Amino acid sequence: MLEGAHEGLVCGVGDDTAVFRSVAGGLWAYTADAVVEGVHFDPAYTPWHSLGYKSLAVNISDLASMGGSAPSFALVVLGLTGDTEVEAVEEVYRGMGDCGKEYGCSVVGGDIVRSPQHMFISVSLVGFIPGEDFLTRGAATPGQVVMVTGTLGDSYLGLQWLMDGRKDANVCAQRHLYPRPRLEEGRRAQELGAVAAIDVSDGLLRDLGHICEESGVGAEVFLEEVPISDEAVDTARELGEDTAAAALFGGEDYELVLVADEDKVPALRGKLGLAVIGRITEGEGVTVLDTSGQRVDMRRTGYEHFKEG
Amino acid sequence: MLEGAHEGLVCGVGDDTAVFRSVAGGLWAYTADAVVEGVHFDPAYTPWHSLGYKSLAVNISDLASMGGSAPSFALVVLGLTGDTEVEAVEEVYRGMGDCGKEYGCSVVGGDIVRSPQHMFISVSLVGFIPGEDFLTRGAATPGQVVMVTGTLGDSYLGLQWLMDGRKDANVCAQRHLYPRPRLEEGRRAQELGAVAAIDVSDGLLRDLGHICEESGVGAEVFLEEVPISDEAVDTARELGEDTAAAALFGGEDYELVLVADEDKVPALRGKLGLAVIGRITEGEGVTVLDTSGQRVDMRRTGYEHFKEG
Repeated sequence: MLEGAHEGLVCGVGDDTAVFRSVAGGLWAYTADAVVEGVHFDPAYTPWHSLGYKSLAVNISDLASMGGSAPSFALVVLGLTGDTEVEAVEEVYRGMGDCGKEYGCSVVGGDIVRSPQHMFISVSLVGFIPGEDFLTRGAATPGQVVMVTGTLGDSYLGLQWLMDGRKDANVCAQRHLYPRPRLEEGRRAQELGAVAAIDVSDGLLRDLGHICEESGVGAEVFLEEVPISDEAVDTARELGEDTAAAALFGGEDYELVLVADEDKVPALRGKLGLAVIGRITEGEGVTVLDTSGQRVDMRRTGYEHFKEG
Repeated sequence: MLEGAHEGLVCGVGDDTAVFRSVAGGLWAYTADAVVEGVHFDPAYTPWHSLGYKSLAVNISDLASMGGSAPSFALVVLGLTGDTEVEAVEEVYRGMGDCGKEYGCSVVGGDIVRSPQHMFISVSLVGFIPGEDFLTRGAATPGQVVMVTGTLGDSYLGLQWLMDGRKDANVCAQRHLYPRPRLEEGRRAQELGAVAAIDVSDGLLRDLGHICEESGVGAEVFLEEVPISDEAVDTARELGEDTAAAALFGGEDYELVLVADEDKVPALRGKLGLAVIGRITEGEGVTVLDTSGQRVDMRRTGYEHFKEG
């Protein structure tokens, strides 16, 4: 076990198992995710510490998208090649530990296996859901409002910055390497009346599209309302990238897309600073609208960059 | 979700997460394990269905070694290469579903990621522990008795059979491909007074060695008492292998090694058919003794075969 025991953890048993205690009547969220070298990360520009941090953070982000909270427990399976250095593994674990400390997650164990050519990290996480209600992808209904935490596109632009081989500090690059799961916001949004949510891992339009599919609805996104950071504007300018395309299609921001009835919006905006970016509609699919309410042609927003995203 | 919902499962959320309900005051066991193509399995002699079945079974075996029970919930991360055929993936899931049905485990979701060259399957499992007590590797004390379920060495000999390219039916090969986790036996053994347990994944001597390390004790194993099946004897003869070596060093039998006080032994033998194979001692490490109580020289039992095991 990497971190001090949180409430509910009974013991680590052996090196790959743990025991935790139920909170009477409560619900647990259970999620898993994996990253593979050469597919999801490139050691050339991914520090080992950030790889560990992010591997845990993306699972905590899934917990956040369900309205879960601390305490949570994670198991980590590392697939290591013969080349992987001990220091790299230590840094990966240190990154996970640092992330766990911030978000009340105990890394309670795991396993190390050999992988012939590509390193992988597979993390699963069990997290507490207070009360009886949680957020899902399938609860959106027409007329509801679509909101988002933070700003979008930063992670994609940060990744371009890193892939461009630039070594100078860049806030977007930092956001790509150390995403901040919105655990507190997801929980509070559920308490304030949000019903559906997803975290932005594949890009806003794709992830909102998942909500639409699961809920059997469509959605409109107001392009001008999608929040973009000053740092994203600066980084995009420097790289010759399109901020709107980055915000709509760029993945791995790990912000939360939240859906709620209109009458819940003032509280959600006021208390959590959410931005209203759209509306749930009848039908299917996600449509992007400009300020005059006209449908935006995706090909003109730089969609071509993201086809492989 | 692959299987019908078991008691406690609230819903699958999205494609990689699930929610389950706590049983008031109960404990949950949490375990994870991964297998990698070319390291843990070879598609040349591993049917996809058995690969799926076994990937889940080894996690259920970990649950068994803690005295856990159904219901349990599993998440599966598949790392697939470009070559993996849809039919193969379907067979893997079908194998998992068949295993889950037998042992009360719902495969509640997971994720599919791309892996450049080698397939991997990473499974995590959360399973219920009734009551307040569970089995650990660290609870053995000197004077206690070491027991084992079933027979040992079958899986190793079955693997040799398969690697030898033999196509005819062989019970040991079947045991290698479709291990039977001892979920019922682990739970009942805990109720009947067993205190420490481990499942045989790395081989009897290594796994009993893990109990010794975690408990700060040593152990003696009575070579003649280690249970060996008739099928193992036949297969070993055919292949020119040593059954004793297979039973002591061969892995993946997924039988349970159980440790209990002497006065619990009659009930454990009578009700679960366990074989008494040794004793916990002061000191450290595992010693193998012959019928006259003499220490057996491991090099003479065929240890050389297993160095890489």
